[in-house]
Amino acid sequence: MATETQTLKVGFQGEPGAYSEKAVHSLFGEPEVVPLHSFHKVFEAVEIGRLDFGVVPLENSHAGSINDSYDLLVRHGLQIVAETVVRISHCLLSLPGSSIKEIKVVFSHPSALEQCEELLDSLEVERVAVHDTAGAARVLSEEKKQGTAAIASEEAATLYGLEILARDIEDRTDNSTKFVAVGKSNPGIFGPPDKTSIVFATADIPGALYKCLKEFADRDLNLSKIESRPSQAKAWQYHFYLDFDAPATDPVVQEALEAVTQHTSFFRVLGSYPGAK
Amino acid sequence: MATETQTLKVGFQGEPGAYSEKAVHSLFGEPEVVPLHSFHKVFEAVEIGRLDFGVVPLENSHAGSINDSYDLLVRHGLQIVAETVVRISHCLLSLPGSSIKEIKVVFSHPSALEQCEELLDSLEVERVAVHDTAGAARVLSEEKKQGTAAIASEEAATLYGLEILARDIEDRTDNSTKFVAVGKSNPGIFGPPDKTSIVFATADIPGALYKCLKEFADRDLNLSKIESRPSQAKAWQYHFYLDFDAPATDPVVQEALEAVTQHTSFFRVLGSYPGAK
Repeated sequence: MATETQTLKVGFQGEPGAYSEKAVHSLFGEPEVVPLHSFHKVFEAVEIGRLDFGVVPLENSHAGSINDSYDLLVRHGLQIVAETVVRISHCLLSLPGSSIKEIKVVFSHPSALEQCEELLDSLEVERVAVHDTAGAARVLSEEKKQGTAAIASEEAATLYGLEILARDIEDRTDNSTKFVAVGKSNPGIFGPPDKTSIVFATADIPGALYKCLKEFADRDLNLSKIESRPSQAKAWQYHFYLDFDAPATDPVVQEALEAVTQHTSFFRVLGSYPGAK
Repeated sequence: MATETQTLKVGFQGEPGAYSEKAVHSLFGEPEVVPLHSFHKVFEAVEIGRLDFGVVPLENSHAGSINDSYDLLVRHGLQIVAETVVRISHCLLSLPGSSIKEIKVVFSHPSALEQCEELLDSLEVERVAVHDTAGAARVLSEEKKQGTAAIASEEAATLYGLEILARDIEDRTDNSTKFVAVGKSNPGIFGPPDKTSIVFATADIPGALYKCLKEFADRDLNLSKIESRPSQAKAWQYHFYLDFDAPATDPVVQEALEAVTQHTSFFRVLGSYPGAK
């Protein structure tokens, strides 16, 4: 952990100009930003102390949860220390001087391609999935292939000298992504926590999930999210991810969590932090 | 709906040799199989009567739910009429005479690439995501690019004249995918239903999800799956998909479903059918 006089090192998946980089700045101001190739590398770099924090997307408002991030939260022993919601406003980018009618192939991250389905359907273009949106913009600027476009942010257009053929091309105008910052411990720089995220696998007893949820309901703790993911340990077994609107230090929460562990075979608090406003 | 003397027409997403085609044969024997470009086109073709049934993947044992399929179940008014689980055993395919050391680029569906992460990491190859596994095999056989491989089924290798460089390359040896057949109505050819799938959006009242689950728990109805997906109507609002082990015709189930609708703003039975054994 960097001291206050040092600049924090914060990593994200993607290349300069990625939406994740926006999230880094929204949470940490102007830290030293470190672009990495994968979510896994972000978690790993924080775990070995090469980074102070990592920022990863957790959920898109319309496409849903980012499975990799959920799975990595369990695989690595890091804590969620903060969250932020970034408005995702995609642009169709091309080499300067291109016209939208010439575009035959569009490169971008699979989520971005999915979020812009209506435009891509109407253009009848081939879609090519790549690692990230900003990377698609960079490759386009380097390879200078005619008839090719990338879907990325306005920042990526500026950074890589591309032309914006169309703005706000996402199907949904309220398209947003929730990002979380993960660290070895909560630095306490984000204000008092009012939200807690947990993950558990239910014990092999009938109605175990319902019994877990009952512990929260009985104590008037409002669940703001429930997500199930394969446990990775055995086929067709699940991890449940729950968010609720209260800090983990609250005695009522502690009582609920204590009770929940009676119905689970695996349980962990992923973090208690201020929820995005 | 075809009569008994006609051959059923069953569609799937992908190209001949796709895992979905295996699922079609597992459920329908030897119907007329119709490969289509997207899940959406499968649902559409059943809806307009061009197909009797469609077969789509719903969940992989390790990668989790196939979001598109869940969303389409809500968007289209079709019923789930049967399900089957297909063991997914991937092969690394190349042009005849290639060696595994020459491979620089691997084409496949994003899920297949994800399921074979360990091998791909060790080979340090570039991954290119395409529409489906069998399509990757077909393109490889047509374009004959050296240094290129595809991840697909053994059937695809035979069909497109490719060599199997490695078998069973998936990270998990129990890698399986659950497929469902959708139709306008249940043909009753799959045996008595013992499983029901529903989808709902909770009403805007505190603890609504818990209240829904309570209706099942109070009646000893075992939930075998819960999944949340963005509702697509408004950012950060969810549809919940529930499976439970009882037929919809059961009076206790009817009572529970009636009670659930008191806590929901949207509710639909997606189907009642025999669960995969």
